[in-house]
Amino acid sequence: MSEERASYRAAGVDLDAADAAIEAIRPHVERTRRKEVLDDIGGFGGLFRFDTRGYRRPVLVSATDGVGTKLELARQLGEHRTIGVDLVAMVVDDLVVTGAEPLFFLDYLAVGKLDPEHVEQIVAGIADGCEQAGCALVGGEIAEHPGVLPPGRYDVAGFGVGVVEERNLLGPHRVQPGDAIIAMGASGLHANGYSLARSLIEDRDLGADHGLLVQTLGEALLRPTRIYARDCLALARRGVGSVRAFCHVTGGGLPGNLPRSLPDGLGAVVDTRMGEVPRLFRLLQEWGPVTDEEMWRVFNMGIGMLAIVGDGEAAVDLLRAREVDAWLCGEVTTQPGVRLLGLG
Amino acid sequence: MSEERASYRAAGVDLDAADAAIEAIRPHVERTRRKEVLDDIGGFGGLFRFDTRGYRRPVLVSATDGVGTKLELARQLGEHRTIGVDLVAMVVDDLVVTGAEPLFFLDYLAVGKLDPEHVEQIVAGIADGCEQAGCALVGGEIAEHPGVLPPGRYDVAGFGVGVVEERNLLGPHRVQPGDAIIAMGASGLHANGYSLARSLIEDRDLGADHGLLVQTLGEALLRPTRIYARDCLALARRGVGSVRAFCHVTGGGLPGNLPRSLPDGLGAVVDTRMGEVPRLFRLLQEWGPVTDEEMWRVFNMGIGMLAIVGDGEAAVDLLRAREVDAWLCGEVTTQPGVRLLGLG
Repeated sequence: MSEERASYRAAGVDLDAADAAIEAIRPHVERTRRKEVLDDIGGFGGLFRFDTRGYRRPVLVSATDGVGTKLELARQLGEHRTIGVDLVAMVVDDLVVTGAEPLFFLDYLAVGKLDPEHVEQIVAGIADGCEQAGCALVGGEIAEHPGVLPPGRYDVAGFGVGVVEERNLLGPHRVQPGDAIIAMGASGLHANGYSLARSLIEDRDLGADHGLLVQTLGEALLRPTRIYARDCLALARRGVGSVRAFCHVTGGGLPGNLPRSLPDGLGAVVDTRMGEVPRLFRLLQEWGPVTDEEMWRVFNMGIGMLAIVGDGEAAVDLLRAREVDAWLCGEVTTQPGVRLLGLG
Repeated sequence: MSEERASYRAAGVDLDAADAAIEAIRPHVERTRRKEVLDDIGGFGGLFRFDTRGYRRPVLVSATDGVGTKLELARQLGEHRTIGVDLVAMVVDDLVVTGAEPLFFLDYLAVGKLDPEHVEQIVAGIADGCEQAGCALVGGEIAEHPGVLPPGRYDVAGFGVGVVEERNLLGPHRVQPGDAIIAMGASGLHANGYSLARSLIEDRDLGADHGLLVQTLGEALLRPTRIYARDCLALARRGVGSVRAFCHVTGGGLPGNLPRSLPDGLGAVVDTRMGEVPRLFRLLQEWGPVTDEEMWRVFNMGIGMLAIVGDGEAAVDLLRAREVDAWLCGEVTTQPGVRLLGLG
């Protein structure tokens, strides 16, 4: 008799697996803990005591993002530990462009079928990213969507909040003609352009190195995103190089994002020959083939973050001392628009 | 020649449609604006000036959630304007249980194929919800996932931040034996239990009213979630009824959520006969059939929020004056565990 009755589990939602997943992720959440965090993950919301000392007019900066179809590649390769780093990177490096210190982070994970081990891998990566960025993982949601997402498929979104004193806000309003533009090296494609990248590698062997030398194509494509938050904050807080603005190079590439960091009326010239485009991008380009313009409009081309500064040399020195691969790549101009020099 | 070259658009990502969508949602974002909001949606992050006056030890409360497979029903019925209200409700009413005032909200929208008109409907609903809750929509992400989600399919996640003075935090630590438990009427299923609900209505006509009188089954199932944030805050701030804690009745139903609002060692008894279970739930139950226990474990059964208060009558009076359907439904006990009275 009882077997005939409909139940939530029969309809595809496994509440016990959800409990198991929450237990599995608890230690990972713990290692991101900051002293301001008040409760554990059992509550309705994450509690973060905001220490107002040192702030006169604090501005809370918030951002949300996902990792796009890099997820599909992770699924193909059965490697889910690094996606969380990408997720945190996408969000916190959007916060830090304003000069904000990332405080806390939450994740939303939608799965077709809840596999606690799988969830643990993903959240462990998110905790890795939070540790790298210095923010606390204070909450999250695991949503099981039977029938909407197939088993094994998932999507993940991240949300972060940071704080900056209003008078220290960085951005276009500080940028002046003649300012130097500094490039910070990327660790790979980060989390942008994977819809195109996946179409370009369709017939390629992900297990081969294709001349990438120390890693396979699959490894190179899955490399987690470099998180620049602490480096950007170091630059901004020490006043070294007189930072005006940062530009997080994500969807739309350098020409799509740099205008967001420039005031109306000013432009920039970036010489693409000042840095070396990593071999991974050249491989993808050859396999298309894809034009230079399209490559730069879709991929970061080896530049994950830009700093617009008054003193380029001082900024490069500080970043290099922090082991960031940094170089002068351009200048702010009185001529509007972003021009890329050195394209084929 | 150029047609042979691979491009981002051919790989399924439409950047122009994204721009059109951002234009379409701008007026909706505008109507949620609060005076603390500093910039528009073009920037990397949302900026919210936090007015520290009136706070000695402010606690930032954050939550994230989705709307589960209610989305599938919305898709089936081609009605996407109300899902956003559900999304905001799920998040802000998790914030308010701590006594926090919702300040700002962000959304993450993943689509198979970006349809600007469709996106506008969804975000318009989110803006409706933010207006109802009194929080600002400060940012969002529209992620196009070609190949992962089919065209027409989407998922949406929300993220909210609120603030409460530390000494005013509500929660289990305030709850005492003998406290009254007040039920606040739900507007429908809210956004929980849809995996089961969808399996129960598989062969039913969504266009018929099935005795629901003023609406069709489809309309009843899609009714947007009642947002209790302002009502809960009114209760908490005026000190009426001596509020100890709230309980947002979501996934897991009343027996799954009420324990989260009780301290170790105490329990509660709830008499299900004190309120009337709306006909929609009875219909679903008959169609299973589903046991009473399972119904209460999955659905809100007509109770969307609980208030645990020292003075039940005063709390009910204030809520009813605010046009919330509210009634006394139970009591906090020294016997641990949550007991539901009156189940069949």
